[in-house]
Amino acid sequence: MQRILSAQLPAHVGARITIAGWIHRRRLLKSVAFLIVRDAAGLSQAVITEPELRELVETLPEETVVAVEGTVTANPAAPGGVELTEVGVRLLGEPAEAPPFDLYRPVLSAGLPTQLDAAPLSLRHPSRSRGLRVAAAAAGGFRQTLDALGFTEIHTPKITATATESGANVFAIDYFGRPAYLAQSPQFYKQMMVGVFERVYEVGPVFRAEPSDTTRHLAQYTSLDAELGFIGDHRDVMAVLREVVAGMVARVGELGYDLALPEVPAEIPALHFSEALKIAGAPADEPDLAPAHERAIGEWAVREHGSDFVFVTGYPMVKRPFYTHPEPGDPRWSNSFDLLFRGLEMVTGGQRLHRYSDYVAALAAHGEGPAAYESYLQAFRHGMPPHGGFAIGLERFTARLTGAPNIREVSAFPRDLNRVTP
Amino acid sequence: MQRILSAQLPAHVGARITIAGWIHRRRLLKSVAFLIVRDAAGLSQAVITEPELRELVETLPEETVVAVEGTVTANPAAPGGVELTEVGVRLLGEPAEAPPFDLYRPVLSAGLPTQLDAAPLSLRHPSRSRGLRVAAAAAGGFRQTLDALGFTEIHTPKITATATESGANVFAIDYFGRPAYLAQSPQFYKQMMVGVFERVYEVGPVFRAEPSDTTRHLAQYTSLDAELGFIGDHRDVMAVLREVVAGMVARVGELGYDLALPEVPAEIPALHFSEALKIAGAPADEPDLAPAHERAIGEWAVREHGSDFVFVTGYPMVKRPFYTHPEPGDPRWSNSFDLLFRGLEMVTGGQRLHRYSDYVAALAAHGEGPAAYESYLQAFRHGMPPHGGFAIGLERFTARLTGAPNIREVSAFPRDLNRVTP
Repeated sequence: MQRILSAQLPAHVGARITIAGWIHRRRLLKSVAFLIVRDAAGLSQAVITEPELRELVETLPEETVVAVEGTVTANPAAPGGVELTEVGVRLLGEPAEAPPFDLYRPVLSAGLPTQLDAAPLSLRHPSRSRGLRVAAAAAGGFRQTLDALGFTEIHTPKITATATESGANVFAIDYFGRPAYLAQSPQFYKQMMVGVFERVYEVGPVFRAEPSDTTRHLAQYTSLDAELGFIGDHRDVMAVLREVVAGMVARVGELGYDLALPEVPAEIPALHFSEALKIAGAPADEPDLAPAHERAIGEWAVREHGSDFVFVTGYPMVKRPFYTHPEPGDPRWSNSFDLLFRGLEMVTGGQRLHRYSDYVAALAAHGEGPAAYESYLQAFRHGMPPHGGFAIGLERFTARLTGAPNIREVSAFPRDLNRVTP
Repeated sequence: MQRILSAQLPAHVGARITIAGWIHRRRLLKSVAFLIVRDAAGLSQAVITEPELRELVETLPEETVVAVEGTVTANPAAPGGVELTEVGVRLLGEPAEAPPFDLYRPVLSAGLPTQLDAAPLSLRHPSRSRGLRVAAAAAGGFRQTLDALGFTEIHTPKITATATESGANVFAIDYFGRPAYLAQSPQFYKQMMVGVFERVYEVGPVFRAEPSDTTRHLAQYTSLDAELGFIGDHRDVMAVLREVVAGMVARVGELGYDLALPEVPAEIPALHFSEALKIAGAPADEPDLAPAHERAIGEWAVREHGSDFVFVTGYPMVKRPFYTHPEPGDPRWSNSFDLLFRGLEMVTGGQRLHRYSDYVAALAAHGEGPAAYESYLQAFRHGMPPHGGFAIGLERFTARLTGAPNIREVSAFPRDLNRVTP
């Protein structure tokens, strides 16, 4: 007999069907027992009256995997308005070990470290699995939007001969007896690939040997990277990012979860860094925005534009990486941006240098020769268009959208300073 | 003026437009010069008659990035039947350095090592970029098919405390002063996630410290992994794989390239390993199929079923990893399979063990205690359904489909025993 999912039961009232899933909860009353079964689509309830079957069910701890055959019977009090009666229960494995915490309660009683240690179990709880479904939908929306805009997906090396940007916070690896490093970002590769496809994106892991243990950092996270050529300046990149964020939020919305999802305005308000400092009441020579400044700017965007999103553009060149394009006419500022969501930085991006001679000069200004960047610089020696891009941290985006206070709650198996298992 | 792509030119005959791209080739004749410009969509031709403009163009080596304004004029002899006349040329950067090999010739004259050293340049040639577009389409088809079948995308750790399967060929990493390893596959994680979502997939890098330098191995490749629960046996996995391969081939077909793409039969013929040995004329006690055997079985599938694809099922348990489910009734064989394409192994998969006690016994039979697998085994202790899955190596799949003799030709920046740059 073909199994159907719990969500399909209401369409089968009166029929004999089979469901299959995990025993979510047993309610053993005096005259009757209820078996709540969980599958990928939700919960269903089986009514057990037969003494022998009840005896069996009493020996099956929660999380045991079973198939339940029964007659679909309307009952307004049951989940979905239906339940299974005249049931037969068949084990699909062996009785499970009883869970160390109850998965059927609305909130997991175990603290986060315990949850993470028992990830194969805790992730079965909606408070954890929903975040991962949001992440999957967000990544799907990212790709769908960029596919429609003519971007090509790329896959780039995660093992590199040199550290990508700064040399700090990289993981060293033994590469066939030689030193190598885990990639901190696909930045150089996505730029090189603009020379091939003009518009590219990558969804993949990046690695940061982050020495501090915070609620916002992971040693491995999923980076959603895009880069595009033949732009006028960073504003063309911001326009694509607006579409991408709208596409991601729309796909998350399709999940139907009870989340306070934002509206993405047709045009996201944008502030120059120097304006942003004024609005935040910060000194005009501040080189960066503190969290309090970002909150003030977020409040300004809501107040003045009714927007949960606001771009800050033109960050000082001194705070941006060497490949950043300066603002034409005033090289103190850069053609870069951050996208703030409800007063928190969510995405970073900007226009990059595209002339070989500019790269040589920028590296020299950073005290570096071109030798270590030779293969990257080939792209520029042989012609690159004006281009730019952005990177979205999938877990951080997901945490912001779901309101998760700790980024580890929206990562299936987080990696940090102290954790390398499961 | 808004730029349009080369492929859009025929729709604008008579209009003034701007294209932008790389100077693909200059043809400097006596009375006229032709400027061939390459963009993401193809080539277009500009006719240059004005002496001053010709002088400029003579100073611009191939791969210089330019914008060309002109009038779209019908000319049956030009690419796409149109060319630009009355043109203006504007540099979008600085003159490029002349390429060390000609990108405008049908075949790259440089050998593969030279191509790989100059990847930012060589990947601009269709012989290389097309393979990467095929890979992107194949990965898109993989996800599209599985999304439609109710699978959820996951992202799992690439840094693990222990080697995933065998302990051999792993890259060691310094993880905050402790030893750790790069993941050889997401096998354990995708199984654990079947306990959460029932059906999951992942597209991501995996790492093999492959000590041999062959045309079929990379130290990093993109693995397309799927795993599903509540199966009867491996045949349910094979049915999903059939849909996935058909979806991948269909998306590649949409690219419109001149490739000998296979038909994927509605039901792919399947042979048990013991039958396969007979057809290949191999001794009945061979534990695995040699390349010559696979070719013979591929020929059999074409001859008997008109199929480029054939499943071989039931591989001997001794040749499969410890989590493999044996064949009920005859535990010499396994509920596993390989999918052969034109006589070459393309995908491996099978049913996995799902009972905790079976894992403990299987590990013991392999001389291992459960301690090193503790977090993985939690999933089975707490109830797992019968499940199975498969993994497709994206680069290998792409090489088979495009006929590339060396897997490095379909990887943008391959990593191997000798290569860690660009």
